[in-house]
Amino acid sequence: MAGMDNTDSRAAEREEVRSIARAAKAVAPVVATLSTPRKNDVLRSAARALVEAEAVILAANEADLAAGREAGLSSSLLDRLALDSSRIAAMASGLEQVAGLADPVGEVVSGRTLPNGIRMRQVRVPLGVMGMVYEARPNVTVDAFGLALKSGNVALLRGSKSARTTNEALVEVLRGVAANSGLPREVVSLLPCETHDSVQDLITARGLVDVVIPRGSARLISTVVENATVPAIETGTGNCHFYIDADAELDSAIAMLINGKTRRTSVCNATETALIDASLPPSAQLRIIEELQAAGVTVHGDVDTLGALGARDVVAATESDWADEYLSMDIAVALVDGVGGAIDHITRYSTGHTEAIASLNARTLARFAAEVDCAAVMLNASTAYTDGEQYGMGAEIGISTQKLHARGPMALPELTTTKWILEGDGHVRP
Amino acid sequence: MAGMDNTDSRAAEREEVRSIARAAKAVAPVVATLSTPRKNDVLRSAARALVEAEAVILAANEADLAAGREAGLSSSLLDRLALDSSRIAAMASGLEQVAGLADPVGEVVSGRTLPNGIRMRQVRVPLGVMGMVYEARPNVTVDAFGLALKSGNVALLRGSKSARTTNEALVEVLRGVAANSGLPREVVSLLPCETHDSVQDLITARGLVDVVIPRGSARLISTVVENATVPAIETGTGNCHFYIDADAELDSAIAMLINGKTRRTSVCNATETALIDASLPPSAQLRIIEELQAAGVTVHGDVDTLGALGARDVVAATESDWADEYLSMDIAVALVDGVGGAIDHITRYSTGHTEAIASLNARTLARFAAEVDCAAVMLNASTAYTDGEQYGMGAEIGISTQKLHARGPMALPELTTTKWILEGDGHVRP
Repeated sequence: MAGMDNTDSRAAEREEVRSIARAAKAVAPVVATLSTPRKNDVLRSAARALVEAEAVILAANEADLAAGREAGLSSSLLDRLALDSSRIAAMASGLEQVAGLADPVGEVVSGRTLPNGIRMRQVRVPLGVMGMVYEARPNVTVDAFGLALKSGNVALLRGSKSARTTNEALVEVLRGVAANSGLPREVVSLLPCETHDSVQDLITARGLVDVVIPRGSARLISTVVENATVPAIETGTGNCHFYIDADAELDSAIAMLINGKTRRTSVCNATETALIDASLPPSAQLRIIEELQAAGVTVHGDVDTLGALGARDVVAATESDWADEYLSMDIAVALVDGVGGAIDHITRYSTGHTEAIASLNARTLARFAAEVDCAAVMLNASTAYTDGEQYGMGAEIGISTQKLHARGPMALPELTTTKWILEGDGHVRP
Repeated sequence: MAGMDNTDSRAAEREEVRSIARAAKAVAPVVATLSTPRKNDVLRSAARALVEAEAVILAANEADLAAGREAGLSSSLLDRLALDSSRIAAMASGLEQVAGLADPVGEVVSGRTLPNGIRMRQVRVPLGVMGMVYEARPNVTVDAFGLALKSGNVALLRGSKSARTTNEALVEVLRGVAANSGLPREVVSLLPCETHDSVQDLITARGLVDVVIPRGSARLISTVVENATVPAIETGTGNCHFYIDADAELDSAIAMLINGKTRRTSVCNATETALIDASLPPSAQLRIIEELQAAGVTVHGDVDTLGALGARDVVAATESDWADEYLSMDIAVALVDGVGGAIDHITRYSTGHTEAIASLNARTLARFAAEVDCAAVMLNASTAYTDGEQYGMGAEIGISTQKLHARGPMALPELTTTKWILEGDGHVRP
């Protein structure tokens, strides 16, 4: 099926995607005007229903895992795909947590009475239909449903083929809860995932889809953002740097660096490159490298430069070591000429996610904060803090690395837009 | 030249656009960190310089006008292109007005101290490089420069070929002021405009252009938005409706309708369709139509239905009468089944700009405000009020009809993004 290029089948799949999107668009006004208690009831019912349907969900998941093993999927992919009781419980508690968050819909963001007497207010309203393109993790299906519903949006989900049976089981549970609560089943829909064509159909469905959010590999994200004709939000690629300045407190700096690198290596806020101020004493520079290695991290860099410090087991770095995320227990290490050199390196290689500095010099910190162009600047804190929950926002749908609409963790308000409402009394403009 | 498809020339033009964009990107950090007084000084100097250079600018404009007449441009296009002393003075006073607006850069939008002691703040920062694609009006060149500079952005302008000599003269004046003030000349740049290819090059310059804003015809806007791979903002297409409910005060409703239609027909907030509640007395329905006609407006609609009311000189409407902007002294008129019928019609044909209702029924107004999905809802006010100056925002770069980033008039804050700055004291995440 993957190579299916029969014109009729292609047209049929395109029409299937458009028909699902039209159905989603049709119910969007209903979902947009649901009251907060009603949405919270549905979220809590969905949390209970997922736990109750555990056996069905795990059986579906086992079918995906068996097919994945047969197809030779990597063990890390299989791990991301696998569910168990505790992962289902985590999805359910995620929905309960979303039920507890403030409802952004209806918030009056700004407002005033104009000199002519018109009463003007800017009110938060849902975006409408939220498309989501993602990879193996089935929890994204449930998270996206929950955040979309709470923000008054309809979710249109395009998960990966490897998680197809699991996603179908999850969406069936969620749609059943919607129907039992008197909501349209189309509050959440799963798109076909046999071929990549359905991604293209989703991201070009102008007039039917109000926003599309990709979540997954850097390649998936750039494919979606570059080919979308509907509004898209770029999320999650994080080639994060941690710069240790000559004025840093070394123990603390090393602890933050190792925390950012090793706490969770597969996440977008993980540290991928350490930049070391070349004016630090050589012994301090060496200590940074050796402590990384002692923590189990493989150091990549210029073998001659780092070797001259006495560093051993350094892997020669190529351009991709500086430009790409490792998402593993690897780090690129470069010596730079002070904060200016660090900023230059970051400007060249940053993906606009999180950039961090360790320094006790106020002027250096202020310069770094002003000149580095990214979603989050960490001053004397680990890169691991870029996270919606850490920010106090609650659950996040992703971390935006673009500049329009939202930058950094995206939670409920970021899934809304606003509408200006002007109340006059027969006003005509002179 | 228009048909030039020589591969070498094409590659050379593409490289020229990219080289101008790279130069713009390179100076963006300088412009981003200019102080407010410095930016205001440059804006006021530019205002004076434009007036002083009047003779040079008018000579350049005369060259464009002569070429345009020879090429057979329409008189309305020539009018949009033409400058005179008062239009130059208006550009200059626009810059002075922008100098008087609050600087959005550096505003702390939100912030708190997290439970772990990290001090977090979200700060407004410039977008960086702002691309603008527009048509004949040369004032857009000056407006875009002014709004970009005040919001700390660099302007990359792609005006129309018909205004080329005028735009070159204007940008030369503005760059001269920049240089005299110690700013990089690249704070504003003009892109080649011989062929449409340079538009494509601009809107696909990922990594060099932070946002592109099209301003002009519906076709220009959709071409830019559908083909851009850099973030784009959809502006300005306004197929605006004015609904007269059975509970409206008729005199006032007609005054608002005629104001929205006739005040300025070529602007995006002009009323393009009147929806009349079919439950109004036939005499009232007829009066609405006749008063429009008496004001010089040509009425399009269903000839039989409107004819049955006694209306004369009704032009038969086709699908495009309902779907497209007239931007002229024409209006489409339909009878609808109350506010529900009006909402259905608007949902089908709205471009998401401005939708208005005349009614004194509070429940009807609330329903209209909640269910109509657009940037601005006017309750008992003319559609003409959707405007940055009317909103009290000062000058606008355009009116966004999309839902992401900005919706409605876009002024200075809408030309910025934010950056989260987290200040810790050696924080590592557990």
